[in-house]
Amino acid sequence: MRKSVLISLLLVSGVFSVANADKELLAKAKQVFSVADADKELLAKAKQFFSPLPNSFPSADNPITPQKVELGRLLFFERRLSVNNMISCATCHAIEYYYATPAPKDMGALALQRRNSPTVLNTAGQFVQNWIGNRKDVEDQALQALTAPATLGNPSRESVEEKLRKIPQYVELFRKAFPEDKEPITAENIAKAIGAFERTLVTPSRFDEFLKGNTKALTPEEKRGLKTFIEVGCATCHNGALVGGTMYQKFGIYEPYWNYTKSESIDEGRFTVTKNEEDKYVFRVSSLRNVAMTAPYFHDGSVASLEEAVWIMGKVQLGKDLTKEQVRDIVAFLKSLTGNIPKEARTPPILP
Amino acid sequence: MRKSVLISLLLVSGVFSVANADKELLAKAKQVFSVADADKELLAKAKQFFSPLPNSFPSADNPITPQKVELGRLLFFERRLSVNNMISCATCHAIEYYYATPAPKDMGALALQRRNSPTVLNTAGQFVQNWIGNRKDVEDQALQALTAPATLGNPSRESVEEKLRKIPQYVELFRKAFPEDKEPITAENIAKAIGAFERTLVTPSRFDEFLKGNTKALTPEEKRGLKTFIEVGCATCHNGALVGGTMYQKFGIYEPYWNYTKSESIDEGRFTVTKNEEDKYVFRVSSLRNVAMTAPYFHDGSVASLEEAVWIMGKVQLGKDLTKEQVRDIVAFLKSLTGNIPKEARTPPILP
Repeated sequence: MRKSVLISLLLVSGVFSVANADKELLAKAKQVFSVADADKELLAKAKQFFSPLPNSFPSADNPITPQKVELGRLLFFERRLSVNNMISCATCHAIEYYYATPAPKDMGALALQRRNSPTVLNTAGQFVQNWIGNRKDVEDQALQALTAPATLGNPSRESVEEKLRKIPQYVELFRKAFPEDKEPITAENIAKAIGAFERTLVTPSRFDEFLKGNTKALTPEEKRGLKTFIEVGCATCHNGALVGGTMYQKFGIYEPYWNYTKSESIDEGRFTVTKNEEDKYVFRVSSLRNVAMTAPYFHDGSVASLEEAVWIMGKVQLGKDLTKEQVRDIVAFLKSLTGNIPKEARTPPILP
Repeated sequence: MRKSVLISLLLVSGVFSVANADKELLAKAKQVFSVADADKELLAKAKQFFSPLPNSFPSADNPITPQKVELGRLLFFERRLSVNNMISCATCHAIEYYYATPAPKDMGALALQRRNSPTVLNTAGQFVQNWIGNRKDVEDQALQALTAPATLGNPSRESVEEKLRKIPQYVELFRKAFPEDKEPITAENIAKAIGAFERTLVTPSRFDEFLKGNTKALTPEEKRGLKTFIEVGCATCHNGALVGGTMYQKFGIYEPYWNYTKSESIDEGRFTVTKNEEDKYVFRVSSLRNVAMTAPYFHDGSVASLEEAVWIMGKVQLGKDLTKEQVRDIVAFLKSLTGNIPKEARTPPILP
């Protein structure tokens, strides 16, 4: 009997341990499936707001050709485009700072910039250019920059054209890029070439992999951040392929922004362009692509840390006091927007 | 008889044509050998004046280590080394212009440069730094640049140190580069790291191949130019591995330089350092390595064209009115000094 009792006990405990193992397995399976479900849900939600980056940002008015892009790349780095040979597009949009700079406001050829230099990576995809939308597209931006004092500072468009016409390699490169033009070296073509180059500056990141269906492309923390980003309301304005750059918005809906940014002066934003009262403190919503690489933040570069910038946005745009954890997770998500600079744009050209 | 006459005639003409062929061959052979002899002679003469570039320019006070070089590369491009976050070493020494710039005088953080920005490629090999030799070596140059108004413009060395200590990646990189220092982020170590990077900026060219014995590395025109360069007297001062950078010399031995350069102001050169009358208008003889890529020319960037610069040097330094052909050949030779930028220095780093 002793023996049979022992066997029975062993059997029973065996059954129990099998039952326990099953329970554990079941719990684990539920967890895995629920994570997978949650991931699917998050992906579906994210797809409502965002889309993967395209390969380039084409323009009907300025078709992208390899000749134009290569010429534009040279001109982008060409300091002789400025009145004093000191400033190029790359001065305020430098490779080493992800095509932006660490100064709150940069110095142009003849004057200090009025606002922070944003990165030009992906900028061609924004619905307007500049913080206050006073440039239609990248070509318009480049064209106006030729003669603006805080950028290239030339006395006239003609003076730049004359300068380039004296450099034989440029004569040849413009001829190749604009084969149908009798006189290809014009300010408009300079702008078109630079624009074509900028239209190729696209920086896909792990977030694009996620949007294309690979839910493992983001870490759990980044996914929590993405979820929070959507739930607290950031994605209401920061959406589309560029996570921003699709609309205007007032900076400081719940409170004046300068309460938190400690800005040195108050910028009336788009009001300075339109003089409409409702445009006061209205700015273009920035793309958040590569935001972790392009401090300092806001139109005046008044905030140095991304964590602080996120928290301030919660306060003044959403009327929410984001917790430390929420800020940390959102920042983790934003870091997943740091993409790869295209190879051709990673090394500057040697100039004629 | 007719037949035998005919045969005789054929034989004779055959002999003559063989003799003629030999003569031609002989003439050709003589030419080839005399070219080879002339090449050998030119090489022997060139070796008296010049030597191939070394792999780097080592310093007993600042041994080159990979960790220092990599940190120095970052700091060289780091605009946060300047008082206003706008200027880095690379501002006045830009990759796209062979580590120089096209402006006669560049703008620093707080003031305009007094003289033209020379390339930093190979500069570590020069016997002193700066046009007037007021910097001992590249480390001294970098250290002084931290607080000079026309370069980085910081109020003190401590202010730069404090700024870098707040960037975690730099704390780590300095620790690795200077493992024996308790507090590795110091102005002296910033200078040492930048110096170590600059000591690797060596740009061998076809001229080095020639000096190593490959007389075909230069074209006939370039060889004529080299011969002329030596014969008219350029190599008296422009010699050594850097084709310059070995001595001081008065600019304007036969005539005041400003008669030709049309300089806006007269620079007294090394006199401003020593206050010795014999140092008036004395400058460091520039290295001519990469000279074709680093216009404009002279201490004040007053001359835009290399042809004109060469002709002016003939006038004021040698008292010679070089012919168009001599200038053309010398310029051809100078272009053979355009070397390859080391791979690590061809692409800027992405900064912390």
